[in-house]
This record gives sequence, C-alpha cells and structure tokens, in this order.
Amino acid sequence: MEPVEYENASEEVRAIFDDIKSARNVPDVNNFWKYLANDPRMLDHVWSALKDVMGSGGHLDPVVKELIYIAVSITNGCEYCQVSHTAAARKKGATDEMLKEMHAIVGLANMTNRLATAYRVPLD
Amino acid sequence: MEPVEYENASEEVRAIFDDIKSARNVPDVNNFWKYLANDPRMLDHVWSALKDVMGSGGHLDPVVKELIYIAVSITNGCEYCQVSHTAAARKKGATDEMLKEMHAIVGLANMTNRLATAYRVPLD
Amino acid sequence: MEPVEYENASEEVRAIFDDIKSARNVPDVNNFWKYLANDPRMLDHVWSALKDVMGSGGHLDPVVKELIYIAVSITNGCEYCQVSHTAAARKKGATDEMLKEMHAIVGLANMTNRLATAYRVPLD
Amino acid sequence: MEPVEYENASEEVRAIFDDIKSARNVPDVNNFWKYLANDPRMLDHVWSALKDVMGSGGHLDPVVKELIYIAVSITNGCEYCQVSHTAAARKKGATDEMLKEMHAIVGLANMTNRLATAYRVPLD
Amino acid sequence: MEPVEYENASEEVRAIFDDIKSARNVPDVNNFWKYLANDPRMLDHVWSALKDVMGSGGHLDPVVKELIYIAVSITNGCEYCQVSHTAAARKKGATDEMLKEMHAIVGLANMTNRLATAYRVPLD
Amino acid sequence: MEPVEYENASEEVRAIFDDIKSARNVPDVNNFWKYLANDPRMLDHVWSALKDVMGSGGHLDPVVKELIYIAVSITNGCEYCQVSHTAAARKKGATDEMLKEMHAIVGLANMTNRLATAYRVPLD
Repeated sequence: MEPVEYENASEEVRAIFDDIKSARNVPDVNNFWKYLANDPRMLDHVWSALKDVMGSGGHLDPVVKELIYIAVSITNGCEYCQVSHTAAARKKGATDEMLKEMHAIVGLANMTNRLATAYRVPLD
Repeated sequence: MEPVEYENASEEVRAIFDDIKSARNVPDVNNFWKYLANDPRMLDHVWSALKDVMGSGGHLDPVVKELIYIAVSITNGCEYCQVSHTAAARKKGATDEMLKEMHAIVGLANMTNRLATAYRVPLD
Repeated sequence: MEPVEYENASEEVRAIFDDIKSARNVPDVNNFWKYLANDPRMLDHVWSALKDVMGSGGHLDPVVKELIYIAVSITNGCEYCQVSHTAAARKKGATDEMLKEMHAIVGLANMTNRLATAYRVPLD
Repeated sequence: MEPVEYENASEEVRAIFDDIKSARNVPDVNNFWKYLANDPRMLDHVWSALKDVMGSGGHLDPVVKELIYIAVSITNGCEYCQVSHTAAARKKGATDEMLKEMHAIVGLANMTNRLATAYRVPLD
Repeated sequence: MEPVEYENASEEVRAIFDDIKSARNVPDVNNFWKYLANDPRMLDHVWSALKDVMGSGGHLDPVVKELIYIAVSITNGCEYCQVSHTAAARKKGATDEMLKEMHAIVGLANMTNRLATAYRVPLD
Repeated sequence: MEPVEYENASEEVRAIFDDIKSARNVPDVNNFWKYLANDPRMLDHVWSALKDVMGSGGHLDPVVKELIYIAVSITNGCEYCQVSHTAAARKKGATDEMLKEMHAIVGLANMTNRLATAYRVPLD
C-alpha cells in the first residue's frame, strides 16, 4: 500500500497529522504515520496511545522511554522502529554512550534469556 | 541438569559465587547462577560481563538498566529473567509506576514493530 | 546457494515444479521453490504439505488461510513470505480493507501478547 | 502486581469493565483486563482499540479475526492469549476443524518463514 | 483438544503410530504425536518429514541433528520440544558436555544476533 | 555509529583486533568487530567468550558449532550473523549437503515448536 500524503488525506487524517506535527514540533510526519494512515482508525488508536505514553509526562524520563522502545525494536529485528526511535532518542538528549550501554544490555539480556531457558532455571 | 550448590562447587565456581554475593550484597546467589555453574567457563563470562554492564558505573541509572533488561525479557517471553530482574529493579528503587510505564512501552513497541513490518514502511 | 531453474532441474524436481505450476495455474514457480529445490527432499515435503493445507478444500476459505499465513509471517519478520502470500491473497480475492484489518489484528495481538506476559496474567 | 477487582476499582476502571461486560455479554471481565487495570490509561487504550477492531463490524468475520489473533499468539508463545482467544473463537462459532486448520497453517508458515530466510530467497 | 490414544485411533493414525514406534524402537509414541493425531493429515506430513530428515542417514550425525533441533527450540522458547529432543539427544549419545557447549553457543548467538542488529552491521 | 578501523583504534581495541586476526588467521577483522569496537568493553567480553566457546577445543566439532550458530541466527532472522557464520562454517569444512540438512532441521523445528504450542502438548 502507498503512503498517504497530507494533500491527499481526509480531514480526519489531516487532524491527526497536524496533532503529531505540533506535539513533536516537526514540519512533516514520519513515514510510519503516512503508511498507517491507510487505516485511519488504527492511526488514531496508535497515535493516541503513543502520545500519552511516550510524551514528557509520566514517571520515566523521555530519553529512558526511547531507550526501552529501541531495546524492544532491536530484539524484534524491526529496523524501521530502531532507526526512527534512535533519532528520536538523540533529539531528546540520548548520547552515544547511553545508546551503547543500552545495546550492551540488549545483547546480554538476549543471552541470559536463552541460557535461563536452556537450563530450565526455576523461579527463585 | 541440577543446580550447583556452594558446598559442592569447585574452587573456581565458589570464587565467582563469592564475587556475586559480595557485589550484590546477598546471602546466596540466584538459581540462574547455580544452574549456569554447570558450565564454569560461561558462568565466568556471563558474570564478568553482567557485573561490568549492569553495575552502578556507566551512563545509565541502575534502575534504567534493569528496566531495559526486563523489557527485553518480556519481549522474549523469559519468565525467569523477567521476575528476577523485576525484583532487582525494585531493590534498586523502581516503583510500580515506573514498571507499569515500561510495560506500556513494551506493549506499544511490539505493536508498532509489527505494524511497521506489515506496511513495509521505508526508512525516513 | 543458487536457485534451481527448470532447465537445469532433475526429473524429480521438474515433476514437482510442474505440479506447482498446474495447481496454481502459473507459468513459473516462485523463487522460494527454486531455492528450496537445492534440497529436493524438503521441496517435496513442503510442497506436499502446503498443497494439502493451503488449497481450496478444507474448513477455512482460501483467502482466510492466506491472511493467517501473512499474519504469522509479519510476526516473524519474514518479508519474502509476507510479500508472496500477500500477492497470493489478493489473487484469491483479498481486498485492501481485509488486509488492513488483518494488519490491525497483528498489531494488537502483538501488543496484548506482551502485556499479558508483562503482568503475568494467570489463565482464566 | 495484583489484579484489580470491580469492587476495588476506580470509577474510571469500573466504567471500562462495564463496557467490556456489556460488549461481550459476560458476567465478569477476564483476568487480562483485571491486571491491565493497574494502568487505567493503557486499559482504556487497549480496550478501545480491541473493541473497534475485533467487534462484529468490519471486513472480516469475527471468527476469522479470532483465528488470526490466535495464530499470532501461538507464534509468540503467549499461552494466556492463545487460550483466552481460543475460547472466544469457539464462542463465536469456530469449530475444531477450523482451529486445526489454523494450527496447520501456523506450523507451515513458521517452517517456510525460516526456510525462506535460510536460503535468502530474493523477492519475486 | 485431547490426545488421541492408540486404542481410539483410526486405522490411518494407528499405522503412523506403529511406524513411529518401530522407527524409534519405543513402546509408545510421545505426547506430541498423540495431540497432532487430531489432524491426521499433518500427523502424516510432519512424521514423514521428520523421519526423513532426523533419521540416521544423511550428512550430519544424528546427535548433531538433535543439538541443532534443541538450539532452535530453546531460541523459540518451546519447552516441550527442548525437553523431548534433549531426551532423544541423550539416547543417541549426547553427553552433558556436548549439551552445555550447545547451550553456550545458543546464548552467544542470541547475544551477537542482537548486537549485529543494534549496530546495523553491513554484510562483509 | 561508524565502524572503528584499525588505524583509528585505541591500543586496547588494536590488541583485540590483533588477537582476532591471529586466532582466525585473517588479514582483517569482520565488520561485526569494527562496529562493536565502539564499545571496547563489550568487544572484549564478546570476543573473549566467542574465542573460548567457538574455538577448536571442546566437545563439539568446530563445524558443528558453526551449524548450531547459524541455526539460531536463521531462527532470529539475523542476516549478518547467518552470512558470516555460513562463510566460517564453509571455511572449517561444512559442505552444501551439511548446510542444507541444517536448513531442513531449522525449518522442521520451527514448525514443530509452534505445533507443540498450538496443541498445548504436556511434557511426556
């Protein structure tokens, strides 16, 4: 399916695109939103949840939220999400040192996850 | 395979168990280490890497490191790692609110990872 | 390994290629079969099972079967299978609306799968 | 974290529980919702999206939607989701024959997903 | 669904059960086959492929085949397959030392798989 | 992040690169190591563990070790690891026939892993 560009979008989709641009202070929305706009209902649900959870409110620092997001995306092998959230993390203040430390944790967790399974370790 | 208890462990394994107990200030090591001790070489590699990365030094807060660890473990469906690192996170200061926020991010990232794949979204 | 083209294929492989072309009413087999033909034994097993299960007989509509196939392929991040079975689904009558609804379900299931794990929800 | 029972729930959570019970015509909500109620914001987002997508409207039959949901849950190894959505599928009319056919497709798709990766098959 | 026991099985299923018992020299088939017998068509396809590939012929030692099987099962978190194929591996001669070495490789591969993804390492 | 080339590397990283080149008898290290060198601490841990486990000592043949490594990498969809370890396996003596047999096992294990989950087969 093709991405939905602003000029061809419905009123409903344009309103969400405008909200994304304003919340993130960007001139255009990322490709993810343009493709998801093929399904306006999901565009609405996903944006509304992400806006709520990934925004600056809450109990975790916005950079930390992005690091968790990237860690999951790497584990799932989703390159698009990894790259776009790494850009977001950097914009919010993540440094190379923080990203590398997160990478190390992702590598180690994936190793110990499988070792715990391999040895069938019972809960403590 | 059976867990290796301290009293039956080799000198080499005992030294690592002692180091774990001292670094974590706990009276006994977790089941993970007792099972992994069946392979002393890997016990050494894994502990040495975890000690380095998950300790209090570095560029991320110890609580944040644990949250990343748990996020990966949930995504991989490793119950043992999820439970043991949630306990570690709480011990280091993670609150229910922080854990719930991390859970929300894990859920959302898993959804958007697959949606980005479903729509074959190209890199921005 | 290189794909096996019809003109270079053994009698055994040609017979399977012919059966695929006839069952699917296509002039040539997809790349998947050409590569798998490096292992004629698996070519036979895989085609024989797919022909049985994905064909028009059975208890599910052929379009529904393809949608399930694609949902798994997206979850596993297999782009080749996702693309080739989306083409097959369309050929059998799947519409954009059906594909988008399946995408939404895949996204939501991946989210709730991890949330159920995160909260360690016991069976009802 | 503990499940949130109706009698201890906030007004906000009770309203969502009531909506789930009414939409599904059940006397009580499943454990999934009770646990997710620890995070009322996500309870709202997840229910609102599931209600929209998995309901009887749309372009796919409700049974088909459940089959897709289960196929993803099996692939991700989420036993809770597999069991609860199998119950939902049966309630909506799924037969043993349909479930077994879906199981077969899940098995075959997982096999061919990895074979396509193993042979690095290029897009057709 | 319930397992299919020999005494209640169809002729077709009994013939396959007999073949499994004879090929593996065991008094009864494993639970996997009893459950899969709910779908006789898949029982036939799966057994026929496994018999061909996992048997003593071929280019890899039967123990090596089992080790590969277990490594995949651990990575996928399938406890049933891990346990049943570990038993099969031992029966065919796998030692604790071999199993532990395989576990170590599974752990390391899972770590480096994610690190290669994290750093987006291009093919050499 | 950019790869670290020998001429720009720190003493510490150069020493590890030299050790890799000498242990593997290659003129230059693979891209994996150049990227991982952004985090010298992990470079050290990963190389030290891989050198120990994947080397010629131990209880499994070096070719077998590589086959297990590749099987995990295919299951995880890590193309870089799959390709680089397939090259390593061939260099150590793996034939096309052995690789194809491993591919078949990976496909079958992925299928039966999900079928065992689908039927919720209890341990024997």
